[in-house]
Amino acid sequence: MDYGQQSVELHKKFGGKIFTGVPFEINDRDALSVAYTPGVAEPCRVIARSPERVFDLTVKGHTVAVVTDGSAILGLGNLGPAASIPVMEGKVALFKRFANVDAFPIALATQDVDEIVETVKHIAPVFGGINLEDISAPRCFEIERRLIEELDIPVLHDDQHGTAIVVLAGLTNALKVVGKSIDDISVVVHGAGAAGIAVSHLLHAAGVPDIAVIDSKGVITLGRADSNPYKEEVAAYNTGGRTGTLAEAIRGADVFIGVSVPRVLTTAMVQTMKSGAIVFAMANPDPEIMPEDAKAGGAACVATGRSDYPNQINNALAFPGLFKGALAARIPKFTAEMKVAAARAIADMVPAPTVDKIVPSPFEPGLADVVAGAVQSVQL
Amino acid sequence: MDYGQQSVELHKKFGGKIFTGVPFEINDRDALSVAYTPGVAEPCRVIARSPERVFDLTVKGHTVAVVTDGSAILGLGNLGPAASIPVMEGKVALFKRFANVDAFPIALATQDVDEIVETVKHIAPVFGGINLEDISAPRCFEIERRLIEELDIPVLHDDQHGTAIVVLAGLTNALKVVGKSIDDISVVVHGAGAAGIAVSHLLHAAGVPDIAVIDSKGVITLGRADSNPYKEEVAAYNTGGRTGTLAEAIRGADVFIGVSVPRVLTTAMVQTMKSGAIVFAMANPDPEIMPEDAKAGGAACVATGRSDYPNQINNALAFPGLFKGALAARIPKFTAEMKVAAARAIADMVPAPTVDKIVPSPFEPGLADVVAGAVQSVQL
Repeated sequence: MDYGQQSVELHKKFGGKIFTGVPFEINDRDALSVAYTPGVAEPCRVIARSPERVFDLTVKGHTVAVVTDGSAILGLGNLGPAASIPVMEGKVALFKRFANVDAFPIALATQDVDEIVETVKHIAPVFGGINLEDISAPRCFEIERRLIEELDIPVLHDDQHGTAIVVLAGLTNALKVVGKSIDDISVVVHGAGAAGIAVSHLLHAAGVPDIAVIDSKGVITLGRADSNPYKEEVAAYNTGGRTGTLAEAIRGADVFIGVSVPRVLTTAMVQTMKSGAIVFAMANPDPEIMPEDAKAGGAACVATGRSDYPNQINNALAFPGLFKGALAARIPKFTAEMKVAAARAIADMVPAPTVDKIVPSPFEPGLADVVAGAVQSVQL
Repeated sequence: MDYGQQSVELHKKFGGKIFTGVPFEINDRDALSVAYTPGVAEPCRVIARSPERVFDLTVKGHTVAVVTDGSAILGLGNLGPAASIPVMEGKVALFKRFANVDAFPIALATQDVDEIVETVKHIAPVFGGINLEDISAPRCFEIERRLIEELDIPVLHDDQHGTAIVVLAGLTNALKVVGKSIDDISVVVHGAGAAGIAVSHLLHAAGVPDIAVIDSKGVITLGRADSNPYKEEVAAYNTGGRTGTLAEAIRGADVFIGVSVPRVLTTAMVQTMKSGAIVFAMANPDPEIMPEDAKAGGAACVATGRSDYPNQINNALAFPGLFKGALAARIPKFTAEMKVAAARAIADMVPAPTVDKIVPSPFEPGLADVVAGAVQSVQL
């Protein structure tokens, strides 16, 4: 039986993957009077008087909404809200498993940006954080930006920033392995969707001096026709003045980051990269280049999104700890500095990186706490 | 320590009253590949192909949203969404405790009727039912009606229908105790808010021939000035032609149902009721008349909303089983027949009612299953 069939069986057996738990017994009228009326009126009054008490007297202090509109589910596309729920529940299960953070899946019956923003604002009171998930670009950028501005709890589109943080963590250790410095490399990012844009911003924030981002039309350059404001921003990072196709842009680059489509990078292209080339081919399940083909082209270090090759770039390394740290310290928003700190902390979980071990396992004990601590170490 | 202080301590200790549970272990990469990517893509695809599978492959089949706008929290008034959360979590805990139904609290940061309806519609995909809670009248009537019309899952405003069902259950047994028949009584309902209106409709549906509903202006009569459409509907039940104040209307009545304010019914007024008078004084925590005062006026059977007197009219007798039945049978809406059937089933849990025992305890084993069965026994 393959993972897919096993997954269907698991979902059927348990009715999805999560349940609501009550952490104490309610076995008599007194217990009922404490948990519910009349006793419950008192915590209500306390919160009405002192609104910040909602964090310690309700689930808000430890609960995240995992919100999608179903527009970009995994690599499956726009399947709508109902079909997205297994992914959202999976995210909720990972929050619990890796960081003991409580979460709840919210699959929205709208794909209108204004309606999504309004709906999330309306349901925000019970949540301590908002994890946006599987929302297509470029809509995801506006939705996240507006929610960050308008809410006083942290909002994070994980497909963007979770990916970016783990890429930076992996790149940090890959650079150690090949003996290069982050402020002295040129990077080609293939794919200008949610992940590609966010990876480019975070690599820039971490000190990468030269980043060329490529979409379906080629390298994004300033003022290019048919661009959008999000692409214009990353076009500014193209300090090497690269233009044209992937085959042209990859020549002499130190790093390839693929967040795009299968099999676009060839062994021949890898051969044109600088020596000590680093290839992150994260299209899932079919990468931009298979690891063996990248190595045949001379790549010194290769990572993918797959669990059956070394160096899996997996968001689960980042998001549980990010929100754990933010909830515990009541951090109202994630900054670029926090994301860089989280990436360094994840990288540091592998004290002696090798070509086949640049990131920790998501099961590494203490990982979420280390990431949480890194987030909290940054002054707002 | 009183219930209120104990409740604050409980909420602080556990960070509210609920958590997210995962019903299986995720301890290695294989388990992760089944619960999350790549395996999770398969249940997503199954639901995309066969939308009804969302009920058995996700939490939708067993999960209810407990939704409020914080406009009418217990008897505390309009405290807003944050201060309402302890009540919503309490409801969630009771769903779990009494019916093993999973639920999640949703406290809305809006009190606009259109926005509430839109928001609930937008978040509905992950829920199998909507329990509206503590929303003020008359807004609650329009919100519930529109959501019932526009959603294909059951929607129930518990302050209306949970109360009405338990009142009808209690009244059924009280009538046995005093030897009267439901189709031969006159009832005065004091209070024309959410509960008063719903109680009146359900008593009418159950066969009560004469119901006078009283608001702050006196008995509601057809075409009265300063009425509203909801009051006009119940005015039609006033077949006895009663008018005027409570003191005037109560004369010769068989039953008083109070869902209003403390201490409005006097011993002297009870003395003017028919012999074998039934008094349900459910203002909380201070009833319309204290049980001892009602008995002094000759009341044969008295019920309140309080746990420290016999005959507590408690919504927890109804709502867990209502939703349990609806979820299990995928009933898309609750009908008046289902509510009457649920009330009869609750009444039947007390095989030999007495003046001090007209309703079962919420801890009565099997109660939720009996209510669920009653709901399912009614053909849509």
